[in-house]
Amino acid sequence: MSNKDEPVRPEARLPKGLFDTQANELRATADMLATIRGVFESYGFEPLDTPAIEYTDALGKFLPDQDRPNEGVFSFKDDDEQWLSLRYDLTAPLARYVAENFQNLPKPFRRYQWGPVWRNEKPGPGRFRQFTQFDADTVGASSVAADAELCMLAADTLEALGVPRGQYVVKVSNRKLLDGVMEEAKIVDEKQRLLVLRAIDKFDRLGAEGVVALLGSGRKDESGDFTKGAALDNSQRDAVLQFFDILPVRSSDPTGPKWDRIASGLQDSDQQLKWLDQRTMKSGIGREGASELGSIYRLVVSGGYSDRIMIDPSVVRGLEYYTGPVFEAELTTPIKDERGIPIRLGSVVSGGRYDGLVERFTGEKVPATGLSIGVSRLLYGLKTLGKLPAESVQGPVVVLVLDRDRIADYQKMAQALRKADIRAELYLGESGMKAQMKYADKRSSPCVVIQGGDEKGRGEVQIKDLVLGATLTSIKDRDDYLKKQAEAQFAVPEADMVKAVRDVLARHRA
Amino acid sequence: MSNKDEPVRPEARLPKGLFDTQANELRATADMLATIRGVFESYGFEPLDTPAIEYTDALGKFLPDQDRPNEGVFSFKDDDEQWLSLRYDLTAPLARYVAENFQNLPKPFRRYQWGPVWRNEKPGPGRFRQFTQFDADTVGASSVAADAELCMLAADTLEALGVPRGQYVVKVSNRKLLDGVMEEAKIVDEKQRLLVLRAIDKFDRLGAEGVVALLGSGRKDESGDFTKGAALDNSQRDAVLQFFDILPVRSSDPTGPKWDRIASGLQDSDQQLKWLDQRTMKSGIGREGASELGSIYRLVVSGGYSDRIMIDPSVVRGLEYYTGPVFEAELTTPIKDERGIPIRLGSVVSGGRYDGLVERFTGEKVPATGLSIGVSRLLYGLKTLGKLPAESVQGPVVVLVLDRDRIADYQKMAQALRKADIRAELYLGESGMKAQMKYADKRSSPCVVIQGGDEKGRGEVQIKDLVLGATLTSIKDRDDYLKKQAEAQFAVPEADMVKAVRDVLARHRA
Repeated sequence: MSNKDEPVRPEARLPKGLFDTQANELRATADMLATIRGVFESYGFEPLDTPAIEYTDALGKFLPDQDRPNEGVFSFKDDDEQWLSLRYDLTAPLARYVAENFQNLPKPFRRYQWGPVWRNEKPGPGRFRQFTQFDADTVGASSVAADAELCMLAADTLEALGVPRGQYVVKVSNRKLLDGVMEEAKIVDEKQRLLVLRAIDKFDRLGAEGVVALLGSGRKDESGDFTKGAALDNSQRDAVLQFFDILPVRSSDPTGPKWDRIASGLQDSDQQLKWLDQRTMKSGIGREGASELGSIYRLVVSGGYSDRIMIDPSVVRGLEYYTGPVFEAELTTPIKDERGIPIRLGSVVSGGRYDGLVERFTGEKVPATGLSIGVSRLLYGLKTLGKLPAESVQGPVVVLVLDRDRIADYQKMAQALRKADIRAELYLGESGMKAQMKYADKRSSPCVVIQGGDEKGRGEVQIKDLVLGATLTSIKDRDDYLKKQAEAQFAVPEADMVKAVRDVLARHRA
Repeated sequence: MSNKDEPVRPEARLPKGLFDTQANELRATADMLATIRGVFESYGFEPLDTPAIEYTDALGKFLPDQDRPNEGVFSFKDDDEQWLSLRYDLTAPLARYVAENFQNLPKPFRRYQWGPVWRNEKPGPGRFRQFTQFDADTVGASSVAADAELCMLAADTLEALGVPRGQYVVKVSNRKLLDGVMEEAKIVDEKQRLLVLRAIDKFDRLGAEGVVALLGSGRKDESGDFTKGAALDNSQRDAVLQFFDILPVRSSDPTGPKWDRIASGLQDSDQQLKWLDQRTMKSGIGREGASELGSIYRLVVSGGYSDRIMIDPSVVRGLEYYTGPVFEAELTTPIKDERGIPIRLGSVVSGGRYDGLVERFTGEKVPATGLSIGVSRLLYGLKTLGKLPAESVQGPVVVLVLDRDRIADYQKMAQALRKADIRAELYLGESGMKAQMKYADKRSSPCVVIQGGDEKGRGEVQIKDLVLGATLTSIKDRDDYLKKQAEAQFAVPEADMVKAVRDVLARHRA
């Protein structure tokens, strides 16, 4: 399209679903990661890092919603024609790592890892193509005490981040319950079972009607795209729906919804467990799931967590590799977006047991369970709860450059401030005094250091307090104004510069 | 190849050139990054993060040694058929970011960023396909004070990491010197100039003979691959070689080397600058380079860095986008590998001015200069210099599980220890006492907490000090042995468990 004689300039832009992160958010994220790391370490988890790129076959295809090969992940061929992919989570690489290093690992092996993961999917609100996860996993422990521990770890982590008790909940269920329901309903085909799981998992996004359609023949979305359903017969479908409290609605409006999730009326974990006990009488695997949840709950009660870790059979989690307990943590305080509209933040921590993931490589069963924190989602939640430090950190002190030939002197002033542990920078642009003051404002500088020819002649520097200076215009009283003005800009002998700057910083310390 | 009836198991392995990183190295890296961040922040640099994936055309092709498209970088097509790449450094994404956000940035804009970068090249010793860089850049400052500042920042960073003055050097040159040499020698073709740059940059790897070949018709390597040369005529070639002190050797052995780099005899920066002044009389661009180096050196002297920042015209740096000052820092203490063989670590920090990189997008010149720390290479250097904390951190206290039915009680003990800020874990495996003790050893636990039926009956717990316990076998004297044995394993009332563990930990605090 472009004229070949003109230079072709690339456009400065990012691919969709990818974002730059600015200083304030990075600092808040770094603080948050440090807190999480501290809690995870206190439980005995050890750090591990795996590379971003893995063999595609080693990662496997375990993304929800992605049935076609290479759908959902970024993949490319190596020189030797083997397929490589960017990791889409931190669990699949862990399974590869454990299978590769099994002999040398302590068993059980508790590890944590954090880092970016990539999903090659349609980006949307809250859906990015690169995002950060922070995972903790326990490999080699078949006991549900390991699952219970992760639920408590999730609770402790949220509280360490400042979420008060009562403003979050960890909900636990067991994938075996759904297996039991399907066993009873004689849904035996593996592919059909996977479609049932994915249908249920979409309740939050598509509602009851959407789930019903996906359990039956399928569903056409607004764009006209058709998703094939699990093709259950009506009695199979109703058995599944009933377990999740999705029931037919009698409505006088014939165009109104025909299905809805009806609150079960079961308020607490004890009631849920009692109901599960009755509900799973007929299926071996279902009974096993209920019994495991009972064991988890006893540990939760004994640990003193029963007010924040709840048994809730409606939890499913979309990942197909879960084989036992599944859990998720969410913030219970209503959260609003920038425009004040209430939003569903979704779970900030999620996890579950995946006893088959290492077996993929070795053929030997290695029990494992883990949790994953959605870092930016949690950060967003903490921000709206007011649990992050103020956005504007104090910027550096700026040493102005009034006489370009004396830049070495100004450089020494900035050095002297830094030696006194004061964040300080030398103005390195080409502009004059006024632009330099604007620059200092943009940098949120608490004060600037000024030395023109006159000050130099007197062996002095001027200190200008920008925070105090900004308040001057609002002062009505003349004497008060002059007094504050004198405080906001004053001269000191060069030798006293560091002390004077320190005094100004102390004025504005939070 | 495999029988279709058998399950096809993926192999648990990583693609070549990619590595997992274990706990000790991760902890050391995290400490190192925190120190670097602190120094960079003190100079007024602000953090920024850009995603791993960028449009291929936005990154451009600035890798040394990579002439063919998509050579050197991992690339793949997006849904809309546009090419995406994994970033190969942090400078190209910064240029894209600055071009995209120019209006809103403070100018000059100082930013730091750290993270993995990817190179799709043949891995080898010390050459990986994913590695971490830590960059600081100043955009919008044309003054060489910005370059001088980065050299001082490099020095301050190395000292903050524990490298003593005298054990490192920052060497500065200027790309304009080579431009001047080429101008004088009438090497005007852009492609030819690039080949000259790359040839000189390979001196460390290929030696004088290799450079001479690459400046001429070309070079065949051991594998038989042929690299085309810059095709200079002899007088052009000799002009370039002479500038880098590469001279013909008179040898009695006709098969011996015909060229070698001969020490210039110029010992310090003052001598180098004087020599450059004479050397660049004929070329405008060369004189400019020498004059800029003079300015940098005056700032270096005034800042008190002249004992560690040196003017050294032999520095070139391989990246073609540099337009002015270039610099690199290296450790000067001889470094040996694990087998005791001396190795050339290469530069641990490198950088330079790249005034054209933002212009690629906008057409407007935006001056910029930056440095990049090779994180794992620097970590390796610090390790061999003995500047890293001891490899083995104290592991967590392990609470053994002797009676599986009482796991809730053991869990409470681990909780109580954690509440007292003691790193503690519950044994979550299925094995007996002996295996649990082995596990605690593998975890580097300072002590374990034991409560069998007997202890429970007496309301006690046993504390076993594993560090002291390990020394028992070497004790010859019976009384001494019994005394130490009593210290190494003892019972306390349950209520005193935390205090007793704390006492044991205090015994072994470093």
